[in-house]
Amino acid sequence: MSARRRVVLASANKGKLAEVQALLEGSGIELRSLSEFEMPDVEETGLTFVENAIIKARAACVASGLPAIADDSGLEVDALGGEPGVHSARFAGIHGDDQANNALLLERLAQVPGSGRSGRFRCVVVSLAHAADPAPLICEGIWEGRIADHPRGGGGFGYDPLFVPRGMSMTSAELSPAEKNRLSHRAQALRKLIERLTMAVA
Amino acid sequence: MSARRRVVLASANKGKLAEVQALLEGSGIELRSLSEFEMPDVEETGLTFVENAIIKARAACVASGLPAIADDSGLEVDALGGEPGVHSARFAGIHGDDQANNALLLERLAQVPGSGRSGRFRCVVVSLAHAADPAPLICEGIWEGRIADHPRGGGGFGYDPLFVPRGMSMTSAELSPAEKNRLSHRAQALRKLIERLTMAVA
Repeated sequence: MSARRRVVLASANKGKLAEVQALLEGSGIELRSLSEFEMPDVEETGLTFVENAIIKARAACVASGLPAIADDSGLEVDALGGEPGVHSARFAGIHGDDQANNALLLERLAQVPGSGRSGRFRCVVVSLAHAADPAPLICEGIWEGRIADHPRGGGGFGYDPLFVPRGMSMTSAELSPAEKNRLSHRAQALRKLIERLTMAVA
Repeated sequence: MSARRRVVLASANKGKLAEVQALLEGSGIELRSLSEFEMPDVEETGLTFVENAIIKARAACVASGLPAIADDSGLEVDALGGEPGVHSARFAGIHGDDQANNALLLERLAQVPGSGRSGRFRCVVVSLAHAADPAPLICEGIWEGRIADHPRGGGGFGYDPLFVPRGMSMTSAELSPAEKNRLSHRAQALRKLIERLTMAVA
């Protein structure tokens, strides 16, 4: 086994940090939080999930001098042509206003019956070895489901109260954190990425 | 089988068009050249292969109104810390000046013995369903090899006269077009992408 490698997660979200930390258990990779460093204010100007994730990872490399992992994710609703997609966090206009975003989503789907409310959470994670790394590792996770008629559950964040995973009746906000971390789009993407990162370490 | 789909290749290079066309044989996908449309002048401002490929594919979607495939590729030389990488086409300063690029590469490696001249061609291909597609299909191909002491062969383009594929003694410029199209980084990446595109068609 080679020496422990340090990697910074391009996020100040403690929940996300804990989730990635748990997935890295025993991998020989030591996760650092971006909040330990002089944090850049990153503008997510990319038009795709992968461009946004690369932008965030690059900024974290610059801030920390370490390799970085970043994610970008969103909810795609088929009846809305894939929206809110990359605009998920600012669907109703204010970045991160979960309540307004969920309300707008319900409003847009008001005339759409249950059978037409299919959608999915998509997450893209990237890892950059350094700020000028031309070839990031890129992995994707997809969580299929449908949009509920009203919000349920107090867990998770974002659209979790409205997202019913395929084969379930509960929303993802009603799952335990452990269950969500086993199933979610982010967990799926991170598991693939960590598998590739730890192969590279070995 | 569904109706034929048209896809534009974000390139005006006839050799590349023929190569992709051959790989698409029997797939139900009809390839169009970007030269049929009002061509945009695309600035490859991305710092990674995937960002550049997305930029090119998006411009091709806008120009054609069709789904687009684009590639970005380069040569990574270990003794040069991965350079020329994303700068491969303009290593010596002028975009596409193969002779100057090859001469500079030989100069940089002048003191590096054969055992240290390892490198690889890397190609990233992306497909966008439309200009605002947030989730491009992304596939990568890697062709391992080493850098020769002097250029050999008149086929291919770019660094082909200096690239000796692993397990071979010829350079990639000495391979027949058919052989190169079977082995190359671009062929590997395109085969993966076409497999995913045709799955989506079926």
